[in-house]
Amino acid sequence: MAITLGITMGDVNGVGPEILAKVLSRTSSDDTQTLVVYGSPEALSETARQCSLPPEWFESVEFRTAGVTDLRYEPGAMRAEAGAAAMRWLEAAIDDVTTGTIDAIVTCPISKEGIRAAGYACTGHTDYIAERTGSPNYRMSLFAGPMRAVHVSGHMPLKQALQSLTSDGIATTIRLAHDALERLGTPMKRIAVAGLNPHAGENGLLGSEDEAIVRPAVELCHEEGIDCSGPYPPDTVFWRMQRGDFDFVVALYHDQGHIPMKLVAMDIGVNVTLGIPIVRTSVDHGTAYDIAGKNVASESSLREAIALAARFAARA
Amino acid sequence: MAITLGITMGDVNGVGPEILAKVLSRTSSDDTQTLVVYGSPEALSETARQCSLPPEWFESVEFRTAGVTDLRYEPGAMRAEAGAAAMRWLEAAIDDVTTGTIDAIVTCPISKEGIRAAGYACTGHTDYIAERTGSPNYRMSLFAGPMRAVHVSGHMPLKQALQSLTSDGIATTIRLAHDALERLGTPMKRIAVAGLNPHAGENGLLGSEDEAIVRPAVELCHEEGIDCSGPYPPDTVFWRMQRGDFDFVVALYHDQGHIPMKLVAMDIGVNVTLGIPIVRTSVDHGTAYDIAGKNVASESSLREAIALAARFAARA
Repeated sequence: MAITLGITMGDVNGVGPEILAKVLSRTSSDDTQTLVVYGSPEALSETARQCSLPPEWFESVEFRTAGVTDLRYEPGAMRAEAGAAAMRWLEAAIDDVTTGTIDAIVTCPISKEGIRAAGYACTGHTDYIAERTGSPNYRMSLFAGPMRAVHVSGHMPLKQALQSLTSDGIATTIRLAHDALERLGTPMKRIAVAGLNPHAGENGLLGSEDEAIVRPAVELCHEEGIDCSGPYPPDTVFWRMQRGDFDFVVALYHDQGHIPMKLVAMDIGVNVTLGIPIVRTSVDHGTAYDIAGKNVASESSLREAIALAARFAARA
Repeated sequence: MAITLGITMGDVNGVGPEILAKVLSRTSSDDTQTLVVYGSPEALSETARQCSLPPEWFESVEFRTAGVTDLRYEPGAMRAEAGAAAMRWLEAAIDDVTTGTIDAIVTCPISKEGIRAAGYACTGHTDYIAERTGSPNYRMSLFAGPMRAVHVSGHMPLKQALQSLTSDGIATTIRLAHDALERLGTPMKRIAVAGLNPHAGENGLLGSEDEAIVRPAVELCHEEGIDCSGPYPPDTVFWRMQRGDFDFVVALYHDQGHIPMKLVAMDIGVNVTLGIPIVRTSVDHGTAYDIAGKNVASESSLREAIALAARFAARA
C-alpha cells in the first residue's frame, strides 16, 4: 500500500529548501510512496535554480502552504516571519498525520531563535510535537545505520539530568527502544543500557546510581521479556554496538548518546521521536545559516530521515 | 642521543606478557632506542612459546626483575602475588626514571583487584605514579593519532565530577594540554574545551556552568598566550577534532572524553599521564583476563604507547 510522507521545510532561510530540493530532484513520488512538502514553492524553486538542479522534477512536487504566502527568501537571515511560517507548516503536518491524511512527518531544521521571535515558547520541534500530540513520555533517539541511541533525558542541564534520573524513566526508555525495533522489524532487539558513572560505577566504588537506579530498571524490563542488559561501562558500550553486540543503546543523558552518535554518523544521522502517537523523523542538524544558499549543504541526513520514516510508516 | 624506555609487564596473568612478546619480537633495541622490561623473564619466554613467536629476539631483551622470583604464570587468574609483583616492577621503574637511569615508563595493564588483594590502597597506575612523584595536579589523557583528549577529572562519580568542577581545574588542564603539544613539537596547538551541558549551555538556557566556570578558564589561558577556545557543544567538538579543527580537546569528565576516544581508537589508543615530572604512557586497555594466554590480544596499543613515550622522551 502506498504511503504518504509529509516533509516540512523548516526555516526557509536555513538549509531546509536546499536539502529538500537536492533530495526531491532525485526522489520522485512513485507507486509505493508519495512525498508532500509543507513549505514555500517559491523558496524551493529559487534554491533549485541557485543549485543548478534540473527543473523538470519541480512540476510534480505536491505542496501544502498552510496559508503562508509572500514569504521573503533570504538565505542565512534569522527572521521571525520565517519562524512563524515554519511553525504553521509543522502544525498543518501534525494535523494531517493525526487525521490520517499523511502517514508520517519528516522535519527539516527550524531556528529556536526564529520560533521564539515568532512568539512560540517551546524549545524546538520535538517538545512541540510531543505537547501537541499529548505525549508526556516522549524520547529523542538517533539512528545511524545499525547504531541507535535513545536518551532518557533531553535538553536540560547535565546536573538536572542526573537529579531527575529514575528507574521509571529508564524503564520507559527501554520499552520505547524495544517498541521501535519491533516496529522496524529488526531480527534482533538487543538493548544495552549505558551506566551513569565511569566503568558503570565499578560495583559502587565510583557512585551508587548504577546499582540503585539503573540496574533495577534493566531487571524490570528484562522480566517483562525485553532483551535488555546493563548497566555497561559508558566508554565501551557504543563501540560494542558498532561492532555488532547491540541493536540499541539507552543513554542516560543527552551528550552520552549524542557524542558517540555524531562522531560516527555526522552526515547520515536521523533523529526519531519515540513515545508519540505519530511517526516523526528529522534531520540531525540545525538550520546552518552560515552555509544556507551556498549549495554546499549535504542532503544525506534528509534522505536517510525519509527512508526511515517510510520504514516506520509502512509497519505502523 | 639514544633513549631508554622501561616497559613494565603489569599483571603477569593478564595480556601484558603476550603483547610485550609480540612487540619485542618485532622491535629490538637499536642505536636510537633501548627497551628494558620490568617483569618476569619466565612469563615472557613462556607466552612467546605459546604464541609460536620465533625465539631469537628473546636473548637480547634486557630485564629488571626487581627481586621478583618464582612467580606463578597462570594466564587468566587474578592473584594477589601477581598484583604485588606488578607493583614491585612499577616502583623500580619509577625509581629508575626519577634517577635518570631510564627516560620514560610504558606500562602494561594491572588488575585493580589484584593490587588491592596485595594490600595497595590506590585505584590504579595513574594515581599511584602521581602520588609517588608528588604530583597533585596530574591528568589522564588519551592519544590516538591526531585525536587527543585530556580529562579535568578522572575516576569519580559523575555527580562528584560536576560538583568539583572549577575554573582553576580547567585552566590547569588546558595548560597541561598545551605543554604536552609543545613537548611533542606539533606545529599547531589548537586546544578546544568541551562544554558541560548540552549545546554548551546555549547561553545559559541549559545550565549556567559553561558561562560561569568554563568560559573564564578558557579566557584566562587565552590571555596567557595559549591557542585555546570554547566551551564548544560537546556533541560536535570531537567530530571537529577528527576532521582537523583542533589538536586537543579538554573533556570535563571521564566519559565525555573516553566515549568518543574509545569509539574511534579502541585498539590504537594510548593513555598518557600529564602533570607528572616523568614521561609515562600506557596501553589503553585492562588485563583482559578472559583472553589472556590465548594468542588473540592485539599489541597495537602497546606499540603506539612505546612510540609516543619515545617522542616525549626525545624532547623532554
